[in-house]
Amino acid sequence: MRTQEMLQTHPRKPVAQDMFNDLAACITACVECADVCTSCADACLGEQNVQMLTRCIRLNLDCADICQTTARLLTRQTEPEPQLLRIQLEACAISCRMCAEECEKHAEMHKHCRICATACRSCEQMCRQMIKSLPAGAGLSH
Amino acid sequence: MRTQEMLQTHPRKPVAQDMFNDLAACITACVECADVCTSCADACLGEQNVQMLTRCIRLNLDCADICQTTARLLTRQTEPEPQLLRIQLEACAISCRMCAEECEKHAEMHKHCRICATACRSCEQMCRQMIKSLPAGAGLSH
Amino acid sequence: MRTQEMLQTHPRKPVAQDMFNDLAACITACVECADVCTSCADACLGEQNVQMLTRCIRLNLDCADICQTTARLLTRQTEPEPQLLRIQLEACAISCRMCAEECEKHAEMHKHCRICATACRSCEQMCRQMIKSLPAGAGLSH
Amino acid sequence: MRTQEMLQTHPRKPVAQDMFNDLAACITACVECADVCTSCADACLGEQNVQMLTRCIRLNLDCADICQTTARLLTRQTEPEPQLLRIQLEACAISCRMCAEECEKHAEMHKHCRICATACRSCEQMCRQMIKSLPAGAGLSH
Repeated sequence: MRTQEMLQTHPRKPVAQDMFNDLAACITACVECADVCTSCADACLGEQNVQMLTRCIRLNLDCADICQTTARLLTRQTEPEPQLLRIQLEACAISCRMCAEECEKHAEMHKHCRICATACRSCEQMCRQMIKSLPAGAGLSH
Repeated sequence: MRTQEMLQTHPRKPVAQDMFNDLAACITACVECADVCTSCADACLGEQNVQMLTRCIRLNLDCADICQTTARLLTRQTEPEPQLLRIQLEACAISCRMCAEECEKHAEMHKHCRICATACRSCEQMCRQMIKSLPAGAGLSH
Repeated sequence: MRTQEMLQTHPRKPVAQDMFNDLAACITACVECADVCTSCADACLGEQNVQMLTRCIRLNLDCADICQTTARLLTRQTEPEPQLLRIQLEACAISCRMCAEECEKHAEMHKHCRICATACRSCEQMCRQMIKSLPAGAGLSH
Repeated sequence: MRTQEMLQTHPRKPVAQDMFNDLAACITACVECADVCTSCADACLGEQNVQMLTRCIRLNLDCADICQTTARLLTRQTEPEPQLLRIQLEACAISCRMCAEECEKHAEMHKHCRICATACRSCEQMCRQMIKSLPAGAGLSH
């Protein structure tokens, strides 16, 4: 991924330089998690026991949409809004956790669920780390 | 929009019937707000004074992505997760509020910003209403 | 939908005025079809006989993604590219036709498939009409 | 990216094994191009001379949407439709070519446009290669 390279060419670089690595890692994790969740939803749909996997498919679809949107928000560095980023990152972390918990139930039987659970756990962790890196004072209050 | 008609044909209808009207109204508001924000971002981009509108464009783009994702989550009625819906609705309400506040600054000069502010305020209100309609016990705690 | 109202406020209005009504109708059809396809995929997923509906779900998911992207391209009036619009509209029309054909097979049994087939046929027709409205000379040649 | 790993765990693997590597490479190229285009649109928006970059921003936004949708279609291996894939890949290749041509005009001045042009050219090539790998008989006829 050229994510980090692109961030470094932006005319308005992230204020805090120590936020930089977390940002690139979080975007990459979101993009990858979205891709894996789309793939897992489709693999579940192709399984013989699809009826046992409807909850997994549903959470995969949600998680793919949320991760893509979160990646886009994080990527945009012009006029960033920490308060909005924080709440979207919260939504993404929760979505990843729920999707991982469901996938882990099928990890023994379906390898795509095992890989997807790993991608979701990694993305959840990156989002939690990213929330901590956001400028202070951008609380949930509104 | 056939949103309500579709919800009524779903094999697993929303548990609480009184949640039904709020749900259809909220989905419609999100879908419409996404459409209007995409249009406002592009109209701002075509204005002579685009340099004064960069913050507006950025918030429009975020809001379009968030509203589309929120609409998709709300539309899905198989195995819904109130906790995830709640936090995504929070993100959507905040995004709509920020976008509306920015568009209102240009409402005198640009009619597309005036219409967009109205759509965002309406969507924000529908999301807030929807949060109240969600089943209790689905708090933000995690 | 405020689609038409927004288009009229755009600083760079569509060149050909007779293209205007087709444009607003086509955007609305795409946005509605995306919403209905997302709903139909989820309703199918919640059915007892989900295993018989996997092809329907897959085509619904594709069609929702394609319709959303096509709506966004059509909505943008700054520096439009007729050649790109034409090919994306072709993709959208084909996706809608395939999704409609599949949904029609289940229209007797599942009302959501019946409504979805109607939305897809309508969107297919609007896309075909829109292609005819595009400025000449924007062929598929490349 | 875990794209290839996920494809290998799918219950319904791609018919032709020689299509497999092209598929993984094309999905990865689309996902990366979408990410880079979102980043380039935002970097252009933050530039002092944004008014000179409106066409670039518009094509970036289109290309990001199209690449994401194309990646999702390609990722889904349950009940694939070569005819639909072919036309969507055509749209993606054209979008990438147009975006690359525009970005190349600003490549000297803006490094983000230089990187974006490279990502778009790479994605265009992968889409063209992928079209050749699709099963025969899936023509554009409809």
